[in-house]
Amino acid sequence: MLSLAEIAHRTQGHVVGDEQICISGVGSLANAKTGDLTHLSNQRYRAQLHTTKATAVLLTEENVAECPIPSVVVSNPQLAFAEIANDFDKRERIPVGIDPTARIDSSAQIGDGVRIGPNVRVSADCVIADGVELCTNVCVGAQSAIGRETSIRENVVIYHDVQIGARCTVHANTAIGVDGFGITVDETGTLQEIPQVGRVLIGDDVLLGASVTIDRGAIDDTVIHDNVKLDDQVHIGHNCVLGAHTIMCGCAGLAGSVTLGEYCVLGGSVGVAGEGPVSIAGGVEIGAMTLVTRDITEPGRYSGATLHTDNRTWRRNMLRLNELDTIVKRLRRVERILEKQTSNDVNSSSAK
Amino acid sequence: MLSLAEIAHRTQGHVVGDEQICISGVGSLANAKTGDLTHLSNQRYRAQLHTTKATAVLLTEENVAECPIPSVVVSNPQLAFAEIANDFDKRERIPVGIDPTARIDSSAQIGDGVRIGPNVRVSADCVIADGVELCTNVCVGAQSAIGRETSIRENVVIYHDVQIGARCTVHANTAIGVDGFGITVDETGTLQEIPQVGRVLIGDDVLLGASVTIDRGAIDDTVIHDNVKLDDQVHIGHNCVLGAHTIMCGCAGLAGSVTLGEYCVLGGSVGVAGEGPVSIAGGVEIGAMTLVTRDITEPGRYSGATLHTDNRTWRRNMLRLNELDTIVKRLRRVERILEKQTSNDVNSSSAK
Amino acid sequence: MLSLAEIAHRTQGHVVGDEQICISGVGSLANAKTGDLTHLSNQRYRAQLHTTKATAVLLTEENVAECPIPSVVVSNPQLAFAEIANDFDKRERIPVGIDPTARIDSSAQIGDGVRIGPNVRVSADCVIADGVELCTNVCVGAQSAIGRETSIRENVVIYHDVQIGARCTVHANTAIGVDGFGITVDETGTLQEIPQVGRVLIGDDVLLGASVTIDRGAIDDTVIHDNVKLDDQVHIGHNCVLGAHTIMCGCAGLAGSVTLGEYCVLGGSVGVAGEGPVSIAGGVEIGAMTLVTRDITEPGRYSGATLHTDNRTWRRNMLRLNELDTIVKRLRRVERILEKQTSNDVNSSSAK
Repeated sequence: MLSLAEIAHRTQGHVVGDEQICISGVGSLANAKTGDLTHLSNQRYRAQLHTTKATAVLLTEENVAECPIPSVVVSNPQLAFAEIANDFDKRERIPVGIDPTARIDSSAQIGDGVRIGPNVRVSADCVIADGVELCTNVCVGAQSAIGRETSIRENVVIYHDVQIGARCTVHANTAIGVDGFGITVDETGTLQEIPQVGRVLIGDDVLLGASVTIDRGAIDDTVIHDNVKLDDQVHIGHNCVLGAHTIMCGCAGLAGSVTLGEYCVLGGSVGVAGEGPVSIAGGVEIGAMTLVTRDITEPGRYSGATLHTDNRTWRRNMLRLNELDTIVKRLRRVERILEKQTSNDVNSSSAK
Repeated sequence: MLSLAEIAHRTQGHVVGDEQICISGVGSLANAKTGDLTHLSNQRYRAQLHTTKATAVLLTEENVAECPIPSVVVSNPQLAFAEIANDFDKRERIPVGIDPTARIDSSAQIGDGVRIGPNVRVSADCVIADGVELCTNVCVGAQSAIGRETSIRENVVIYHDVQIGARCTVHANTAIGVDGFGITVDETGTLQEIPQVGRVLIGDDVLLGASVTIDRGAIDDTVIHDNVKLDDQVHIGHNCVLGAHTIMCGCAGLAGSVTLGEYCVLGGSVGVAGEGPVSIAGGVEIGAMTLVTRDITEPGRYSGATLHTDNRTWRRNMLRLNELDTIVKRLRRVERILEKQTSNDVNSSSAK
Repeated sequence: MLSLAEIAHRTQGHVVGDEQICISGVGSLANAKTGDLTHLSNQRYRAQLHTTKATAVLLTEENVAECPIPSVVVSNPQLAFAEIANDFDKRERIPVGIDPTARIDSSAQIGDGVRIGPNVRVSADCVIADGVELCTNVCVGAQSAIGRETSIRENVVIYHDVQIGARCTVHANTAIGVDGFGITVDETGTLQEIPQVGRVLIGDDVLLGASVTIDRGAIDDTVIHDNVKLDDQVHIGHNCVLGAHTIMCGCAGLAGSVTLGEYCVLGGSVGVAGEGPVSIAGGVEIGAMTLVTRDITEPGRYSGATLHTDNRTWRRNMLRLNELDTIVKRLRRVERILEKQTSNDVNSSSAK
């Protein structure tokens, strides 16, 4: 139970209405129950202020006048809501201590207050900092290090020689430090794998979703800077470098040697893969399902995906697309004929 | 060993040929061995009736006359084959009981006839119904519930507060209830994760493939209705709602807050991701690798992917595509010139 | 420590410079440290020969003259580097033996020199050949077989009746032998799963990345021939057949019943999915994010993805794309008018 006064205090806001009112949960404007705190962060949902069953709402000054229920006025309602919702997050944590079924190599350094769950394996020369949580079945390879308060969820596999910073979260079934996909052909035409001896270096406050794959560098390292956020099923090839505060949405993937600047946002299923290394400037946003094959040097929004349409229209247009160059040539021919006519006309006019 | 009489009985069909013939396995028309039952469900393979080594075939009335081997005539040979093939499915099951290495919280309710394998972890307040199978290394988070006869394959991670219905199958390495990808920016430009406190609710008879990721709701719940079938590597963002009997093929993905109606079919690698919530009507089929960014309100078939072609043609056409708007403007200019000529002609004609 | 003489011997090369010089590590041209061996395999990086801190470099005859540091001259520097880099690969191996927490069915045949880690499960009638490595938490289903010296990384799930050849590597969280996605509709409109009773057969020297999913055959088998290399997050549907020496890059996926010839290269996120089975000839290369819906019968390079551009240009052109067929009709109308004019001109000329 939190009073509105307390909520205002924690979110640097002020209460409009009775400060002593208490909330016991959180909910969306549409589905909140009595006792819930909700928030209005998008004017699209503004009309719902009048129908919500929530007991109180976080909002900005802009919407106070029209709000029929008690409110806490803040500068960023979404951020304030995030702060308060944490109190109602029912996620379980592994208890502090080391589960007896965990297998910790004697050479590993284990910090204070760690939470190490059943069947966890920590290999030789690892460094597990204070407050780290390793959930059930997590495997940490030799010489790897995990920073303070980082939480690694169930069944995550961290290969050897991987560094992860502080306060990161890694979701279930993610693999970090996988051998990069380096293949060459020998004189008999047989594909040979090139040993991948680089590392993975991950900064602080990084989020990795579930079933993410991050390859280790071929020779140099794969690097993910501070505060990067990767959604589920993202793939990072070997020797990629991701600038700080960069976001990749679900199923996006980078081939090897891609560099992303700071504050990039890659939409869902975006792919970056060129003939050689590809470099994308900071502040670039890329629309869902776009393929990027060449450098982007200027910040801004970029896209490449086609728009859906009904199947008949689509089929007709796509067949045309495969003759587009010919179509343009036909257009040019038409233009030339007309140019000639015009110049003839002009000539004949001037001849008169 | 099954007699054709028995097969006909179980599939509501009738035998053409000797009812006492027995089959000892199943096979495709092309590769069946003597003793196998096969089926003809697609007229494309009809000629193979004459070359198959199968001992008997499930088919419809339509193909009886031309069939040189004993047959069982049914209304839906594929469905009938599915029914019989079950008998020859060699998949192992975890034995009934709880493996001594499984870790079951004392507050969890465990039904009768459950099959709980090695190293399984079931957390506080879980409800595991009768006949549930939890294979090796499965983790079930606190307050989650799994319905009767549902089978969860190896290394699946179910987070807290997830409800799964009866008779579902969840394949290996899938994660359910992962934190949704909710990110906001604070006043310092740092990305902050918004706590994801909604649940995941999954109906009865749902199939989830391997390496599927299903995010929990941000505040409200992510909902998957009865009889939904998701292929491997599908991704479901937070607060999605999938209508009953809907299919998503391999690698398809939904961003947050996507609603799919009933009986939709999304092809492989389809993506649905808009600026805001996207809603797709029931009965919509979407072609492979299509991106959907806006609502689809009418049932029907939709596509958006481009067609492949040889690299030279492709490069030429794609460069043209990026000047298509200019091309249309050139066309319009040409049309205007011609219109003017025509009206001049008309004028000069009428002037005569 | 390796002398250049030794390196030259192992790579069938010859030393230019002091044969007694020793190297103690490997590095890229750009980031090598003193003591490292590097390689020049791409003329793009040629200028770095003059700035590298490496102690020696693998290169071809072509670059010897300009190289200021000791070198080993070989025919394929990348391949030679791969050979030597293996010595500096710090990856840990599970020790020889069977971990006491591993669960091996008494009917399984276990070869000599196997390395079986913690919590591994090997089911009935499996055959684990000499020198196989099964890392922590690996599950192997009944009747499956794994060939000599194959290494299966952490948390991989191998279903029943899967055959894997010799010297393969399977990375973390991959699932092999998952039920194919075979769905049919019964008379009530309910989706029914068709039992998947085929197997998965994988040849020798195959590489599977992390979070790969390989479905078992519906009736016949899914087959992956020798020396195939699959990157992370690749998906293989039921009854696919992959020819020897074929490569699929990250996130590429095949629907059911796709056949790839030998020496194909599928770029990242390529999808192959047709109405029926799709067959792709040997020697076909497909550009990233291309969708292939029909057979490709000739070797060569194919693509289909659109190119990215800035958002405004993109939106304008994509809207035009959805009216392309109409545009072509307008062009044809223009052409007809001009043809008529020309033939009129000709007529009137000839009439004169």
